[in-house]
Amino acid sequence: SRSINLAVIPGDGIGPEVVAQGLKVLSAVLPQDVKLETKEFDFGAKRYHATGETLADADADALKQHDAILLGAIGDPSVPSGVLERGFLLKLRFLFDHHVNLRPSRLLPGVSTPLAGQPEIDFIVVREGTEGPYTGNGGTIRKGTPHEVATEVSVNTAFGVERVVRDAFARAQARPRKKLTLVHKNNVLAYAGHLWTDVFNRVAQEFPEVTTDYIHVDAATIYLVTDPARFDVIVTDNLFGDIITDLAAAVSGGIGVAASGNINPGREFPSMFEPVHGSAPDIAGQAKADPTATVLSVALLLRHLGYDAEAVRIEEAVSADLAERGETPRTTDEIGDALAGRVAG
Amino acid sequence: SRSINLAVIPGDGIGPEVVAQGLKVLSAVLPQDVKLETKEFDFGAKRYHATGETLADADADALKQHDAILLGAIGDPSVPSGVLERGFLLKLRFLFDHHVNLRPSRLLPGVSTPLAGQPEIDFIVVREGTEGPYTGNGGTIRKGTPHEVATEVSVNTAFGVERVVRDAFARAQARPRKKLTLVHKNNVLAYAGHLWTDVFNRVAQEFPEVTTDYIHVDAATIYLVTDPARFDVIVTDNLFGDIITDLAAAVSGGIGVAASGNINPGREFPSMFEPVHGSAPDIAGQAKADPTATVLSVALLLRHLGYDAEAVRIEEAVSADLAERGETPRTTDEIGDALAGRVAG
Ligand SMILES: CC(C)[C@H](C(=O)O)[C@@H](O)C(=O)O
Ligand SMILES: CC(C)[C@H](C(=O)O)[C@@H](O)C(=O)O
Repeated sequence: SRSINLAVIPGDGIGPEVVAQGLKVLSAVLPQDVKLETKEFDFGAKRYHATGETLADADADALKQHDAILLGAIGDPSVPSGVLERGFLLKLRFLFDHHVNLRPSRLLPGVSTPLAGQPEIDFIVVREGTEGPYTGNGGTIRKGTPHEVATEVSVNTAFGVERVVRDAFARAQARPRKKLTLVHKNNVLAYAGHLWTDVFNRVAQEFPEVTTDYIHVDAATIYLVTDPARFDVIVTDNLFGDIITDLAAAVSGGIGVAASGNINPGREFPSMFEPVHGSAPDIAGQAKADPTATVLSVALLLRHLGYDAEAVRIEEAVSADLAERGETPRTTDEIGDALAGRVAG
Repeated sequence: SRSINLAVIPGDGIGPEVVAQGLKVLSAVLPQDVKLETKEFDFGAKRYHATGETLADADADALKQHDAILLGAIGDPSVPSGVLERGFLLKLRFLFDHHVNLRPSRLLPGVSTPLAGQPEIDFIVVREGTEGPYTGNGGTIRKGTPHEVATEVSVNTAFGVERVVRDAFARAQARPRKKLTLVHKNNVLAYAGHLWTDVFNRVAQEFPEVTTDYIHVDAATIYLVTDPARFDVIVTDNLFGDIITDLAAAVSGGIGVAASGNINPGREFPSMFEPVHGSAPDIAGQAKADPTATVLSVALLLRHLGYDAEAVRIEEAVSADLAERGETPRTTDEIGDALAGRVAG
């Protein structure tokens, strides 16, 4: 008999509210014979204030015992900026080698976008998750003086670039349009840009059916607002991916519906799935948070674990719910109930 | 009697076409008593193919003899990506210490935007121009092998950050809203982010009338499409500035109307003014290019040299021209004539 052993990290702010709905929909969609076991972890601001810890070694070991991780959101104004981001979110990406940071963007019928003319948007971004400017490499000398120098080193390896590029090509190959766009800034960041471009062109030869192109990251932001339909799959580095996926989320319905997966494709470590939005402390505890992004993250989680049919059921339920929802604002719980009802149906 | 000694670099593709209109409007707007002298330089793809050079020492010395530089566009598909960008454009920014890269974004009446609902957009971006990830610092080992490692080093100094932050505060102070937003990614790029944030907060104390805020670069791309009216002046690093100003141009009428200045505020070296768009070889020689961005760059040039009234005349002419233009497409020359007629009138 099948089972899913899930680590759940509700986190801060609206995290617990949206995670509850994600779990509700997950339970509703799973076939009877699949045993779902969940274990909750209390990472985030509260733990940090209580113990000074963000993610201890023992915590990481405990998380490792699971098939996957569902995260709500981490972050609170009471914690200095960067502490939880680097001490928990990024630490986990590095520890669990989440080198494929997957962020789909789809403008669903009935969903509003800041763009005029309701363009077609249906692409995925494969963002590298363990290298580039995110390595924490760099330093400061003469801190606080007029002679301070601060550096940040973007570290890029053939190993790291090739595996994520290969993953993106495979994803492009599996989609109807079969198109892959490399986004970088190789005219300026020549060392990293050369490596990315070179690996991209080399791997492309193994995927003759995939159409490829290249655009600079600055130009990519223009296309994302003037012609998002040109994109099918995008592969890009960690920082460029961070920037363009927020923009991609904004144009395709907002961060209320943007899902993401921090994936270790070889499954040496559990992958982590989370909404792109943050903990939104300003609306926490008011039942106002939209759990849709979390529910779509659950779909990514299911697909990663091989439950493709269930993932599709969730995605279809979300599409139908968004298309058919009325004008009356719904609570977090009501949206979760509606989605759970649809997937069970 | 007053005089302007201008270096003109028409460049590649549509560069010569738009520069011709910029000069036409410049001549038309200048009072009789101002003597305009121009000297043309042939930098760009042709020079590169003929001599292998992008910008020789003697060229830089010759450029230095001028009060300012007007550039059309540099770049051609026949030249490998990065050669002219780094060998000419960036080289000049560094040689002439163009640390203030000024990029205004204004959605003028009658100009279409990809955003729904014609939002109010009127802000300027002060992008640092001589540091950050643009320094060319970094390297590659084991190039072309499976063990290649490529690094890019973002170099940030208190000296470099403070002077651009100070410039941005002064610009914010001079605007009606007096609001300055720092855009960075200080939760991840902690060394550089700390330096930027620290300097920003310190300089802020000298400008008590300026309202300040901070947003991460990824969130900034969201606001640029959902709430661009929140911005008045933005100050940011070289790479973030590159990315967000292309997006800013896209939402405020496109790169056809986006102007920029590479400014050395102390005037130790001539500043360079150029449209944000590139050489657009696909439409070169067809009289299709919109010279508006170049004409607006001429306005920035005039303001830099102290001709404020003339700069305003050009900006008003452009506003009126865009608001009153008909549906019939106009040639590059026709637009230039219309603008020259308005500023002379
Ligand atoms: C919170 C932050 C560290 C994170 C990132 O920069 O990757 C976030 O912006 C994201 O996109 O997941
Ligand atoms: C052409 C390129 C080097 C340049 C840059 O990256 O600065 C351009 O994109 C710009 O914004 O002026």
